[in-house]
Amino acid sequence: MPHLNLEYSDNLPELNVDVLLLRLNHALVGSGQFADEADIKSRAQAFSQFRVGTAPAQRAFAHVRLAILSGRSPALKKQLSEGLLDVLREAIPAQAGLDLQLCVEVLDMDRDSYVKLRLPS
Amino acid sequence: MPHLNLEYSDNLPELNVDVLLLRLNHALVGSGQFADEADIKSRAQAFSQFRVGTAPAQRAFAHVRLAILSGRSPALKKQLSEGLLDVLREAIPAQAGLDLQLCVEVLDMDRDSYVKLRLPS
Amino acid sequence: MPHLNLEYSDNLPELNVDVLLLRLNHALVGSGQFADEADIKSRAQAFSQFRVGTAPAQRAFAHVRLAILSGRSPALKKQLSEGLLDVLREAIPAQAGLDLQLCVEVLDMDRDSYVKLRLPS
Repeated sequence: MPHLNLEYSDNLPELNVDVLLLRLNHALVGSGQFADEADIKSRAQAFSQFRVGTAPAQRAFAHVRLAILSGRSPALKKQLSEGLLDVLREAIPAQAGLDLQLCVEVLDMDRDSYVKLRLPS
Repeated sequence: MPHLNLEYSDNLPELNVDVLLLRLNHALVGSGQFADEADIKSRAQAFSQFRVGTAPAQRAFAHVRLAILSGRSPALKKQLSEGLLDVLREAIPAQAGLDLQLCVEVLDMDRDSYVKLRLPS
Repeated sequence: MPHLNLEYSDNLPELNVDVLLLRLNHALVGSGQFADEADIKSRAQAFSQFRVGTAPAQRAFAHVRLAILSGRSPALKKQLSEGLLDVLREAIPAQAGLDLQLCVEVLDMDRDSYVKLRLPS
């Protein structure tokens, strides 16, 4: 942990996902909440099949889910989500004619049952 | 919010995913629970790598995860999941020789840490 | 239920995903927790866009999320995650020069709102 999933609609052709993932990871390192930078496992997926709402408008989204081990305070989670949203905002600028939504969600992973193995150990 | 993820096995060649996503969104709008239709962000993913159970039967699945902000009642969540299951059932008919499972899950997103930005604002 | 999602970085070319999914399912059947083997719906996704940490090292991950209906004990969830981690470890051996992380997370699905339909019924 943490695990980060970036999901985005594939109508954002200007987006440099490799750079974005690295910046998201730097934001997490900068939060001071994660002892080892190597623990941050981030991945991204573009969706070609998506639908925002029901109206026939040009719409796009990018959504980050950050999964962390349970036990952190609400204030800290809010701080993490706002830091990640700042990174999204810098990476994905507003575009004329495109209704764009950027979202960040923080969720708890059950600490008691989470297991991890790092190899070579 | 809400965020909807449709995951399905890629052995459903007749499935029109674009139509299905739009119908799922219409069902959510029709529930009266979401003030702005544009808030509904739905996406779908076909899995070519899947395995249902352990027996060598012809099997398929479609699974909807609906993530909403925490605080809604159990009765309302059940109503939402049943409404979405109705849409799945209409879109994915039973096929002879295919063991098909349709599922809908509703999960809470932590309201306190969820952040969203809509652009242009 | 259960639903299993395997997410992995796509720099594990030796990985036989079909075999791994079948072994994960067999481990779940062997746990004795799931009455019908056909209920186990597992799928896998390789991520070509990923970033582990911030340092420029060769890194990889495989992460299993097992979603089960709420109500099972912490001890049982731990047993399930450890059993699945054993399967990952056998399937994905350590490689010289590659920093590899294998993780398993167990999460609850809300029992009250989960709905499923099996066709033909």
